[in-house]
Amino acid sequence: MISEKMKELVAGSSIIRAMFEEGKLMSTKYGSENVYDFSLGNPNVLPPAHIITAINEILVEEEPNLVHGYMNNSGFESTRDALAKSLNKKYNQQLSCNDFVMTVGAAGGLNVILKTLLNPDDEVIVFAPFFGEYKHYVSNFDGKLVVIPPNPPTFMPNLDAFEKLITHRTKAVIINTPNNPTGVVYDIETLQKLGEILTKKETEFNNSIYLISDEPYREIAYDNINIPCVLDFYQNTFIAYSYSKSLSLPGERIGYICVNPDINYKQDILQGLNVANRILGFVNAPSLFQKVIERCTDITSDITLYNQNRDILYKHLISLGFECSYPEGAFYLFPKALIADDKQFCQDAKQFNLLLVAGSAFGCSGYFRISYCVSNETVVNSLDAFTKLANLYK
Amino acid sequence: MISEKMKELVAGSSIIRAMFEEGKLMSTKYGSENVYDFSLGNPNVLPPAHIITAINEILVEEEPNLVHGYMNNSGFESTRDALAKSLNKKYNQQLSCNDFVMTVGAAGGLNVILKTLLNPDDEVIVFAPFFGEYKHYVSNFDGKLVVIPPNPPTFMPNLDAFEKLITHRTKAVIINTPNNPTGVVYDIETLQKLGEILTKKETEFNNSIYLISDEPYREIAYDNINIPCVLDFYQNTFIAYSYSKSLSLPGERIGYICVNPDINYKQDILQGLNVANRILGFVNAPSLFQKVIERCTDITSDITLYNQNRDILYKHLISLGFECSYPEGAFYLFPKALIADDKQFCQDAKQFNLLLVAGSAFGCSGYFRISYCVSNETVVNSLDAFTKLANLYK
Repeated sequence: MISEKMKELVAGSSIIRAMFEEGKLMSTKYGSENVYDFSLGNPNVLPPAHIITAINEILVEEEPNLVHGYMNNSGFESTRDALAKSLNKKYNQQLSCNDFVMTVGAAGGLNVILKTLLNPDDEVIVFAPFFGEYKHYVSNFDGKLVVIPPNPPTFMPNLDAFEKLITHRTKAVIINTPNNPTGVVYDIETLQKLGEILTKKETEFNNSIYLISDEPYREIAYDNINIPCVLDFYQNTFIAYSYSKSLSLPGERIGYICVNPDINYKQDILQGLNVANRILGFVNAPSLFQKVIERCTDITSDITLYNQNRDILYKHLISLGFECSYPEGAFYLFPKALIADDKQFCQDAKQFNLLLVAGSAFGCSGYFRISYCVSNETVVNSLDAFTKLANLYK
Repeated sequence: MISEKMKELVAGSSIIRAMFEEGKLMSTKYGSENVYDFSLGNPNVLPPAHIITAINEILVEEEPNLVHGYMNNSGFESTRDALAKSLNKKYNQQLSCNDFVMTVGAAGGLNVILKTLLNPDDEVIVFAPFFGEYKHYVSNFDGKLVVIPPNPPTFMPNLDAFEKLITHRTKAVIINTPNNPTGVVYDIETLQKLGEILTKKETEFNNSIYLISDEPYREIAYDNINIPCVLDFYQNTFIAYSYSKSLSLPGERIGYICVNPDINYKQDILQGLNVANRILGFVNAPSLFQKVIERCTDITSDITLYNQNRDILYKHLISLGFECSYPEGAFYLFPKALIADDKQFCQDAKQFNLLLVAGSAFGCSGYFRISYCVSNETVVNSLDAFTKLANLYK
């Protein structure tokens, strides 16, 4: 008696989330120290101490009815103002508070953007491998997902294939850099070329095509690599940001949408985002955490742990003969499975208490994802299990 | 370039929200003490001190990665457990944690329920006057809103009209008691008859028809009136609850869905709610406030102020010749306008710095809503303005 669409969704319910639940069950059975759960992007690093300080200060200093009350559906102006200042300084932009809408994480933000833009059957392009939830977000508004095939071993976007698959129905393109699941960071050259292709196609089809940059991992990059600001490369750009990963606050559901100040149909779009935030039932981003963000715009969790985990796991996997590109950002490794059937590979891994996610969940079979935002102990203790897994296929 | 549907939505953007913004502008212009803003349900009563205590305790006592981290999309089990215990005691129910899904307020909850249930063109019945957002929530999932005409002067639901308008396409019925905008509370007899009609129609059409009880005002009732538990009157019932009003936390977006333990297709429904919460982009209800609720299940804001406001305003309006039913709950009065055109009436009220919402926004023209969750000072100072408004039409 649930809807037809929901029946299918329940049947194919998220593999990643199912593993999260399976991991909890295995922990109960074998003891959590004996289960190597690399399935979910639930940060192990603590939220910065500033967060707790900010909460305490807000509760003492600010008026409770303002802190916990309704505000404009786009969020507190003071919060959006602080964000504009922070991004202007960091990326040399000219943003104002009006270019921001505070959202219930990036997942909320993406739904709000797509609700605003999509007519039924509008096409939304994604690059495989991609975060599997995009499929649902696009389907929520009856859009059509168009997948650009994966481009191993670098996993940089295949821009030739991309150019060919843009049609007069293309309404939006979602990119995700640093990338989940590959850890790849798009360089300036790639973003420049991407922007040029979109500009050319907009002229060809006499249409606006919107670039949506999903950036929860923007602050998680290693070796002092430069993460370019997508606003610099294309006019019709949205950023969907989340503090889930950068401040280790995934449960709090706090993020924002930032639009390029020169975006086409700007007033319609900003009003649309505001209305979508309201009628989809978000109403507004959680208010206390908007205030927290306002006081912590330039703070990031300490990602030293992730960096260490990355190197330990990467070296071990390479020594075992795995093929894997060295990730520059996010907290994922995306190695090639040792058999063609990635689902079977991840099934096999469970006998060693290793929880991995099959690449198929990201539209890229033959690979698997390791989420290394876990404790250093889990990583070190898991190495033997990976060795045993590799030996299975020798 | 925004979607066709969104163009219409932006054009007809919420009157209530527009007035909220207008009120802020007027406050800047005339001074907030000279503007009588009765437009929005933004509680003036402080959140109970327990809330702040709970936040402080959680930040000290609990592990930050658990407090701010991901959990099952349905919410922390410990929170849902505490809720089950609380409702079991209060309403003599047999609920377990599995009968609850924590949501981003009741607005989030209603969207999650409708996403789970509705096929395109399924009918959802509401009783006028009704919270205008229901229209959008139903439209989000391509459902068809069926409106039962208002039943003045009592504004109890017209159950004869209701029975006639149930068809084989009726998938759900939304009720809201204590009611926004009328303040009416459905009594046991009404709920009993409603349940009987639904049970009869389920048999007649060999279909499940789901009752969705939107209950953000459940704890806001006066004169020790008994608010019956809807679960007692019909099997296929959802409750969508919010702490926005009862704990004065509207900005925090925290609420829950509770299903009748005997609901048809229970496992499908619970899984559907879980999936809908995830893919609509809520992912989960804000985590810190789930923990807060867990520690404050039986706490409610002090509603003495609302009670006083109700009586002062009601008496004054009656003395001015307004027709108005005496509200038993929520914090709204819904008097008859002094001219047929309620929009014009609310427009006229602005010259006295009175912000009121036209009944048309609730599907009931000829009336207007006063939201009295404001300071006592605002109420007292506004009385003259109401007198002047009434004199306009003498």
